[in-house]
Amino acid sequence: MNQEQYSHRKSAARLQILNADGTPAARTSVSIDQISHRFLFGCGAFDAVDLMKTQDAGERAFLQDRMEKWLALFNYGTLPFYWGRYEPVEGQTAYPETFAAAKWLREKGAAVKGHPLCWHTSCAPWLLQFSNEEIMRRQIERIHRDVTAFKSVISLWDVINEVVIMPVFDRYDNAVTRICIEKGRVGLVKEVFAAAKESDPEAVLLINDFNTSEAYAQLIEDLLEAGVPIGAIGIQSHQHQGYWGLEKLNTVLERFSRFSLPIHFTENTLISGEIMPAHIVDLNDWQVDSWPSTPEGEDRQAREIAEMYTVLFAHPLVEAITTWDFTDGCWLKAPSGFLREDNSEKPSYHALKKLIHGDWETHVTLSTDDEGYLSFTGFKGDYRLQAAMGSAEFSLNSDRSERISLA
Amino acid sequence: MNQEQYSHRKSAARLQILNADGTPAARTSVSIDQISHRFLFGCGAFDAVDLMKTQDAGERAFLQDRMEKWLALFNYGTLPFYWGRYEPVEGQTAYPETFAAAKWLREKGAAVKGHPLCWHTSCAPWLLQFSNEEIMRRQIERIHRDVTAFKSVISLWDVINEVVIMPVFDRYDNAVTRICIEKGRVGLVKEVFAAAKESDPEAVLLINDFNTSEAYAQLIEDLLEAGVPIGAIGIQSHQHQGYWGLEKLNTVLERFSRFSLPIHFTENTLISGEIMPAHIVDLNDWQVDSWPSTPEGEDRQAREIAEMYTVLFAHPLVEAITTWDFTDGCWLKAPSGFLREDNSEKPSYHALKKLIHGDWETHVTLSTDDEGYLSFTGFKGDYRLQAAMGSAEFSLNSDRSERISLA
Repeated sequence: MNQEQYSHRKSAARLQILNADGTPAARTSVSIDQISHRFLFGCGAFDAVDLMKTQDAGERAFLQDRMEKWLALFNYGTLPFYWGRYEPVEGQTAYPETFAAAKWLREKGAAVKGHPLCWHTSCAPWLLQFSNEEIMRRQIERIHRDVTAFKSVISLWDVINEVVIMPVFDRYDNAVTRICIEKGRVGLVKEVFAAAKESDPEAVLLINDFNTSEAYAQLIEDLLEAGVPIGAIGIQSHQHQGYWGLEKLNTVLERFSRFSLPIHFTENTLISGEIMPAHIVDLNDWQVDSWPSTPEGEDRQAREIAEMYTVLFAHPLVEAITTWDFTDGCWLKAPSGFLREDNSEKPSYHALKKLIHGDWETHVTLSTDDEGYLSFTGFKGDYRLQAAMGSAEFSLNSDRSERISLA
Repeated sequence: MNQEQYSHRKSAARLQILNADGTPAARTSVSIDQISHRFLFGCGAFDAVDLMKTQDAGERAFLQDRMEKWLALFNYGTLPFYWGRYEPVEGQTAYPETFAAAKWLREKGAAVKGHPLCWHTSCAPWLLQFSNEEIMRRQIERIHRDVTAFKSVISLWDVINEVVIMPVFDRYDNAVTRICIEKGRVGLVKEVFAAAKESDPEAVLLINDFNTSEAYAQLIEDLLEAGVPIGAIGIQSHQHQGYWGLEKLNTVLERFSRFSLPIHFTENTLISGEIMPAHIVDLNDWQVDSWPSTPEGEDRQAREIAEMYTVLFAHPLVEAITTWDFTDGCWLKAPSGFLREDNSEKPSYHALKKLIHGDWETHVTLSTDDEGYLSFTGFKGDYRLQAAMGSAEFSLNSDRSERISLA
C-alpha cells in the first residue's frame, strides 16, 4: 500500500519560523513531532473506574501499570454508564468514581465516551415497578442528569444501544423494551437523542448496534428522516466467531457510507484463541470455564488487527476505532485483549502501536529557508516544534499557513 | 480586652519593597492584606462528601450554597472515616467521594483532618467474625491503607477516639473494645499511632476524647511516657447540656497545658435551643423528634461562641478550634449549627465571621520610607501586598526581614 490512501488523514503546513524577537529564523533546523492524533484510537477504559475506586495497594499498582500501557496506545476511552450498574439503587450512582475516571483520562490527554444512556440490557431492575409513562420520564431525566453532570469531561455518548433488536428482545422483561414497544423504535430514539442534545448541544451523539445488516441501515434512514441528530454511526464488530475479513468489512463500510455521516467502530473484538462455534446466535450463550490465548492465536489476532485497522484508517468516513477489551478475560472470558490477564503485552499490542505511533505519526526534521519558511504534510493532530532557540506547539487539523515564534 | 493577649498569634515583618527592576520602591503606598490564617478555624465538612456524591441537581445546588458559606468562614475541615460507614462491606470503601471531597477542600485553601482511624463506635460490624489477632492486624492495615491513600490531601488525623472509655464501653459488642481490653489502652494507642506515623511521618496525629477529666490527662501522661508520638491533644466540647463557662474552660485548658503540646478543640458544640437535661449521661440517649432553634437561643449561642473562641484564641497552646456541626439538625437533631437547616445564617455565623475575618485579621495600608522599607506586625498567615506597580504574596509565620519585589 502507498501512503496516498491516507491523504484524507493529513494536512499541509507552511510555517514561517520566527525568533523570539520576531525576526525570521533563517536556515534553522527544526524538529517536528506529532504528539497527538486527531483520529480517535479508542479502547474500553472500565479499569480506570476500578483504579479510582480501589484502595487495595496491590490492585492499585496492577491497574496503574495496566492503564499506563493503555495510555501508551490510545487517546480515547469508553466508560460504563449501564443504568443497572451505574445506579443499582435508585438515587445511588457510581458518580464519584466514574467522574474521577473521566477527569483522569482527560488530564492524560484522552477523549471520553459514555456508554450507553439507554439500553434494554443491564437496565435498572427497580424501573420495572413503574408505568411506561413513568419509565420514560425517568429515562429522559437520567439522560439530562448524566449528560449535564459529565459535560466538562465527556464529549461523546452512545445515546442508545442495539435498537434494531430492542422491541423484539424477549430474553427477559425490562423497562426499556417496554417503552420501545410502546413508542416504536423511531419514537424512542428521537426522544432520547433530543434529551441528550438539550443537555449538551456540542456532544457527538451516537447510535450503536451489533446488527450491521440492511435492517440497521434502514433504521438509520428512518431516524434521519425523522430529524434525529445522529453525530456518528456506531458499528459493533465483536468477532468472537472469526474475523470478518475484507469482504464483509468492505460491505459494511459501503452500506453505512451512504449517509455521509462519520462512522465509529465502537466495539471491536478479535480474539487470540479458539473461535466460537458459528451456530451460537447470541454470543452471551457461549459460557465457558476458561478460554485460553494461544501462541498461534496471538499471531493471527495481531495480523487481523493490523489489517482491519489499516482498512478503517484508510476509509474517509471512519473517525474512531474502539477495541472493546483491553485485556483478556473480560466479556465472555475471551482472549480478546491487547494484554493478557497478567498485563503482559501480546503481539497485537505491538502491531497496533507500530501503526498508531509509527506508520501513522509524523516525525521529521527540516531546515527553514532564507526567510525562515518550512513546509510539510503530516497526519492530523497536535505537534511540537523544537529548535535550538526554543519550542512551540501547534495543531494541524486542516491546511495551514502560519507564523510561529519559537521561545 | 486588649490586643496584647494575641501577641503569640502575631509576627513582625520588616520589608524592603523593590520595583521590578530591583531598585527600592521609595515613598510608595502598599496595601497589606491577610488572605489566610495560620490558626486552624475548623468545622465538620461531611457535606463536602455528599456534594461529591450526589447527582441530584437540587441537592447539589443546596450543598454548593452551604459549602460556599462554610468556605467564607473556615480554613480547616473534618472528614468522616468511621470504619463502619467508610467500609460498610469489606473492601468496598467510600474512597472516591471522600478523596474528591478532601481534594476539593484543599483546592479551596482548607486543611483537612480525617476522623477517626480507630474507635469503638461506628465500627465495622463485619470485623466481629474475626479473632482478636486478626482484628488487630486489620486495624493496623486499615490505618496504613487510608493514611497512605490520603497523604497528598490529609495532613491531620484523629488516630484514636475516646480511649478513656474504650475498654469499659459495654453498650454493644464491637471489635475495637475487644482489642482494647486485650492490649490495654496504652498498648493499643501505641500500635495505632505507630502505624499512622509509619505511613505519614509528617502528619499531625491526634488523640481525641470527650472525657476532659484527670483520667484523660493521666492517660496522656502514660502514653507520652510510653513514647507515643502525640502531635496534638484533642478535646471534645459538646455542650448540649449548657455552655461550660469560663471556669470549666480555664480548668480544662490548665489541665492539658501541662504537657506543652498543641491543644486542638476538635468537636465543639453550642446550641441555640433548649438545653438538654443534666441527668443524661450519654448524650446519645437524648432522642427527640425535633429540637428547635429559638431567637433567644440563637443570641445566646452567638455570645457563647464569641466568648469561647476568644478565650481559646488567646491561649498560647491552642492551635485549632473545630465546631462539629455546620448546620442545625445533624447529630441528635440539635440546633447546633452556624446555619439553620435551610442554610440561612444564624447570629453565631456573623459573630464568628466578625472575629475570624475582622478582629483577628490584619489589613493595613502603609507607605515605604526613602529606602523602600516598611514595618508592621500582623496575625500569622499568608498576605498579599499590593501597590501601583504590582503585587506579591508572602507568608508571615515568624518575625521576618525580607526584600520583596512587586511585579
